[in-house]
Amino acid sequence: MNIVKCKVCKQAEAIIKLENYRLNLCPGCFDDFVVRRVEKGIRHFRMFGHRDRVLVAVSGGKDSLGLWDLLLRLGYRADGFHIDLGIGSYSQESTRLCREFAEQRKLKLYVRSVPEEFGLGIREVARSVRRAPCSICGMLKRHLMNRTALDQGCDVLATGHNLDDEATSLFGNVLHWQEDYLARQFPVLPQVGAGLKRKVKPLIFVGEKEMAAYVTLKGIPYIYEECPMSKGAMSLHYKEILNQLELHSRGTKLFFLKIFLDEQRQRFQKAEDQQPALAPCTTCGTMTTAGLCAACRLREKLAERGAPGGRS
Amino acid sequence: MNIVKCKVCKQAEAIIKLENYRLNLCPGCFDDFVVRRVEKGIRHFRMFGHRDRVLVAVSGGKDSLGLWDLLLRLGYRADGFHIDLGIGSYSQESTRLCREFAEQRKLKLYVRSVPEEFGLGIREVARSVRRAPCSICGMLKRHLMNRTALDQGCDVLATGHNLDDEATSLFGNVLHWQEDYLARQFPVLPQVGAGLKRKVKPLIFVGEKEMAAYVTLKGIPYIYEECPMSKGAMSLHYKEILNQLELHSRGTKLFFLKIFLDEQRQRFQKAEDQQPALAPCTTCGTMTTAGLCAACRLREKLAERGAPGGRS
Repeated sequence: MNIVKCKVCKQAEAIIKLENYRLNLCPGCFDDFVVRRVEKGIRHFRMFGHRDRVLVAVSGGKDSLGLWDLLLRLGYRADGFHIDLGIGSYSQESTRLCREFAEQRKLKLYVRSVPEEFGLGIREVARSVRRAPCSICGMLKRHLMNRTALDQGCDVLATGHNLDDEATSLFGNVLHWQEDYLARQFPVLPQVGAGLKRKVKPLIFVGEKEMAAYVTLKGIPYIYEECPMSKGAMSLHYKEILNQLELHSRGTKLFFLKIFLDEQRQRFQKAEDQQPALAPCTTCGTMTTAGLCAACRLREKLAERGAPGGRS
Repeated sequence: MNIVKCKVCKQAEAIIKLENYRLNLCPGCFDDFVVRRVEKGIRHFRMFGHRDRVLVAVSGGKDSLGLWDLLLRLGYRADGFHIDLGIGSYSQESTRLCREFAEQRKLKLYVRSVPEEFGLGIREVARSVRRAPCSICGMLKRHLMNRTALDQGCDVLATGHNLDDEATSLFGNVLHWQEDYLARQFPVLPQVGAGLKRKVKPLIFVGEKEMAAYVTLKGIPYIYEECPMSKGAMSLHYKEILNQLELHSRGTKLFFLKIFLDEQRQRFQKAEDQQPALAPCTTCGTMTTAGLCAACRLREKLAERGAPGGRS
């Protein structure tokens, strides 16, 4: 059998082929590669430093658990944050994997539970207020995570969005010329006042396949399934299309995303006086464009419908 | 059998389904539809008026011959322009179909021949100067067509690029963030000085399938084959991908293109003082950024290599 040697150390057997970089790597050099890509993202976009307290959003998937692992290896102070969405066995398994990851490493993990706080799973919450589940879920995640960071004195919120996620999101935003999303699509969103914490995406330069290989080689158990609510989502279709483009022309995704971030995004940014004015929510203090923030409005609506509501 | 009635006249049998507009149309109402779409494009972008002399570039394909037919039906003054590219039987058939179209209708058709002028077909010209054939072909077409318009006193150059062509080209330009192409992608490019005629694309709002149906219903013979040089071209791959997106979400192509043209393109335009300065070519007078225009440089290179060269 033909053994391919690692292109970097030239000694060990290569076990992974990074098509994009024309690199065949052994486990050790691949590990170095991923660590360096994450560090590059953090530094390139000045996401945070070693004194900052980072709160990592973990879903139980490969990207977020891998990110938490990587941040700790790079010496950053990182706690975890998880939301139990109450989507049957999918959520049970997700929560179990996050807790297990934290316990084994003696890490701090903050868990909030949609069923405990609302008496309903995310699917039922969305149905009750007649909204798309993914939109309600995104909003609640952002809100609860920010709330937790404020309460626990964390400085930065980190999410596991990888290169493929970001390229896919850019693809959809360009296809529909979503000006506001294009202006805000960046791996660092600055803190706003005292009420909205900085948000960062340290996996911006790491592809989906690389992350899958990373957690597999590290032996980190993660949930394989996509969220059952995402079936048929356009984003999955866009991801598939970007993969087709990548097959035809290697590096398309990275180029598309990187040039946008470095050179093109500024074209979509609004002048400061055109940006929406933010003020603290009259109920919970989160920065919002309306008087009452989206999460508090949701609680009000649910209360009108007789659902429990819970703390903000 | 279930007969579907035309959605417009509600009398004749529908023979075509326009998915995008949720319209089933009979031949007569479909014909009206195409004519109105072309008129809409011409007026929306103020391409030309009834006094202007239009020179239509015809390749022998459905779009360009259909365009010529449509412009005449709309009462515009339109002559034809064709280039025999010297690509074997493909070019012979293209030229024959253009000549036949013009003769049957007693129209003026100007023909230039790459083999007559250069002693070589376009494939061999490109090989001789070590350039990609599609790039040389595009450059020569633009040059010779502009030259003919200047010589014959035409006001506007019209090409048969349809909605699919333009959406495809936009897709490729966005994917690679080709700033200069994005700034120039518009269905009207203004006249520059006395040396560069206005260029227009009146089929900007007519899809590829609609054009195929139009020429078929009108009984206009056209060449079915794609240019043999275009095999494996990225543009064909992009077209396929846009068709997949369209299947998932009707109207994607039109929306992507129209919002770009109406609202987003301005973001990519440069200030006037940043635009390249144009001056007449020292040999042929065509406006160019270099001293010698691309076509005259090609002739020089070919002459160095012993090829005939010919008139400019």
